[in-house]
Amino acid sequence: IIDKYPGILHFIESIPFSLVYMDYNATTPLEAEVVQTITEALQEAWGNPSSTYPAGVKAKAMIKKSRESVARLVGGEADDIIFTSGGTEANNMVFHTAVEHFWRNWEAAQETHRHLNENRVFPHIVTSNVEHDSVKLAAEYLQENRKADVTFISVSQETAHVEVQDIIAAVRPNTCLISIMLANNETGVIMPIQEICSRVKAMNKKREKLRILLHTDAAQALGKIPVNARELGVDFLTIVGHKFYGPRIGALYVNGPNTRTPLYPMLFGGGQEQTFRPGTENTAMIAGLGKAAELVTNNLLDYEAHMQKTRLYLEERLKAVFKDKIHFNSHYPGSDILPNTCNVSILGPGLQGWRVLSNCTRLLASVGAACHSDSGDKPSDILLSCGIPVAVAANAVRLSLGRGTTKADVDAVVEDLKETVQLLC
Amino acid sequence: IIDKYPGILHFIESIPFSLVYMDYNATTPLEAEVVQTITEALQEAWGNPSSTYPAGVKAKAMIKKSRESVARLVGGEADDIIFTSGGTEANNMVFHTAVEHFWRNWEAAQETHRHLNENRVFPHIVTSNVEHDSVKLAAEYLQENRKADVTFISVSQETAHVEVQDIIAAVRPNTCLISIMLANNETGVIMPIQEICSRVKAMNKKREKLRILLHTDAAQALGKIPVNARELGVDFLTIVGHKFYGPRIGALYVNGPNTRTPLYPMLFGGGQEQTFRPGTENTAMIAGLGKAAELVTNNLLDYEAHMQKTRLYLEERLKAVFKDKIHFNSHYPGSDILPNTCNVSILGPGLQGWRVLSNCTRLLASVGAACHSDSGDKPSDILLSCGIPVAVAANAVRLSLGRGTTKADVDAVVEDLKETVQLLC
Repeated sequence: IIDKYPGILHFIESIPFSLVYMDYNATTPLEAEVVQTITEALQEAWGNPSSTYPAGVKAKAMIKKSRESVARLVGGEADDIIFTSGGTEANNMVFHTAVEHFWRNWEAAQETHRHLNENRVFPHIVTSNVEHDSVKLAAEYLQENRKADVTFISVSQETAHVEVQDIIAAVRPNTCLISIMLANNETGVIMPIQEICSRVKAMNKKREKLRILLHTDAAQALGKIPVNARELGVDFLTIVGHKFYGPRIGALYVNGPNTRTPLYPMLFGGGQEQTFRPGTENTAMIAGLGKAAELVTNNLLDYEAHMQKTRLYLEERLKAVFKDKIHFNSHYPGSDILPNTCNVSILGPGLQGWRVLSNCTRLLASVGAACHSDSGDKPSDILLSCGIPVAVAANAVRLSLGRGTTKADVDAVVEDLKETVQLLC
Repeated sequence: IIDKYPGILHFIESIPFSLVYMDYNATTPLEAEVVQTITEALQEAWGNPSSTYPAGVKAKAMIKKSRESVARLVGGEADDIIFTSGGTEANNMVFHTAVEHFWRNWEAAQETHRHLNENRVFPHIVTSNVEHDSVKLAAEYLQENRKADVTFISVSQETAHVEVQDIIAAVRPNTCLISIMLANNETGVIMPIQEICSRVKAMNKKREKLRILLHTDAAQALGKIPVNARELGVDFLTIVGHKFYGPRIGALYVNGPNTRTPLYPMLFGGGQEQTFRPGTENTAMIAGLGKAAELVTNNLLDYEAHMQKTRLYLEERLKAVFKDKIHFNSHYPGSDILPNTCNVSILGPGLQGWRVLSNCTRLLASVGAACHSDSGDKPSDILLSCGIPVAVAANAVRLSLGRGTTKADVDAVVEDLKETVQLLC
């Protein structure tokens, strides 16, 4: 678009600031304090953290402090935190680890599962059919390249989350990993991770060497609901800074890397991050991630309450304006959802989500994951998996609110949607 | 050290600013313009680059501009640039690609090299014995895990660079990659990459499917000498921002990813970077990398001339003060070196590099790569490989200068070294 219309950026900048951003599940702005932390670190802590003179020591201290803050965010110890370039890397590292761990323990496994020896047995992974692409495609890659067998468990069409018994039933003797997101990015539905972990841990007691590793991608949950990795019982938990007003890096929580939980690096180099993730540390971004984590630790209850209240107001206003023409794609009996996520369809012909959004003058939102923004008018696979009918899913708009979303923003958006629907009908 | 002495950071900060940093090969400060670019992008271009509304479009435009700047830095096209989290990832990605490419072309290779079929043939990689750990350990990992055979070519003890004929002689029918750094981080010696590429290309003409891929890690060369990937003739070239006053990310130049040159992703996810390196883009850091690249493109000749002049002055001063007690570990007849790198030993007992540096009051430098800062008083393997005797290598100090290093800095450092040597002798 920029190539075609070189003037478009100036045009965009000239748009008066009446736009309302409701795509906080795609990414969030950085908190001013986070920007300040990053800028200061860029200026003052540019030394190589491996250097032993002051510039290096200062950078190293900053990284240590951030590691402690990020650990606190997820209820872990500082040593449990491995900084990564983002959630995609963290998720891929878990899949890589599970497969490596399987093969390195294969001889032990052969003892235990002698009946499997007739044919070559691959590591087996269980995941859901509504995961983010960085889990889904990592799993599909392993499957397609005959590096692992993968079972994609369908979420229940009643609850929109995976059912614990479905996960347990999918477990095989060669299962090495269960990876289920903590909250879905499109519907906001929260998955029963604690129950899965508790059931699997009981199974693991009988499995000795080939225990099943447990992973949750907490990208969408952090900063919105309380997340405690130890209480959940996971071995791995994915942390993504830019979903909670932090920078575009991430971290992987590992419950005791290489002590209680195996971890295999994908990269080799200078030995940083306990050798699990080498490369000169991105000190400034790491400091910013720590600051963003600290803000969540200190203010989560406020953030959560505010988002919940604002979302309920949004849903109320939508119902008041659109009456029985509204369908909430996030509402499933008995399922908990993120406080900020309202996936909604305005029913009727010609009201496809992309069409509504592209005609809105103030609302900035999306029909699903940003990485799928080029998928056009195809209804979301995730909503279809949750049992939303095609015609309803096609009209879906994901409205995801932030810490600063106001009732006035909600009013403006509902008005915008109302005018757009009038225009399109 | 911070745990033991919690007050140390305040102490460090109280040190008057008479310190002279001469460790620019470990990392560089960010140019003020780069910090400004990053800070502005954090504030104004925080949108998800995959989003189609203005915040996303702006971020995407910024990434596009940076890609063009980075391409210009290395003489490539914008599409040749894959942004990565840093040099370590870029180097590992090349090794991953070479091995993947080998296996995916194995059937074709079997036709060509039928005589190899008796035993299982592994991909074969040629590299040098003076590479950075992110090449060395990536290669060793492949070798130790029986994923590839690796030949580590020793640099000549006369020239401190690999000799072209040694590389060519190491090539086997199953060689899939030659990876040689452009300039060494400890000695600054420049390797004959262009000659290697030209010889290998002639060989490749006869190899059809299993051509040898050519990689150079240009981490230390960029920003110091002209680097043109097309003229060098490489398929891959590693770019590291924090070595040329940019941020802690990097990029991999690939001569036509997946068209002229194979490229296989290590990560799977949202499809960013032409699917070769998914993950929501680190827009701000990418913008900063572009700005740092632009500064080099515009000012390289000045930077180079200044560093060269200042280093020659440093060497002259060292010779004047220490006379025949000085040995330059960067000087090899006929070898070109980076303009900023002066690896030097002050001869005599008790003058080990680490001992000299820890007694200097103003000089901040290192004895080798920062990632090896915990290796204590062990002489550098790289210097030993270059033929420096153990007793001389043990005394080595790597002084690497920057764009802003002045003659006054040099005078201060030489005085500091003189006093330290008097103290220690």
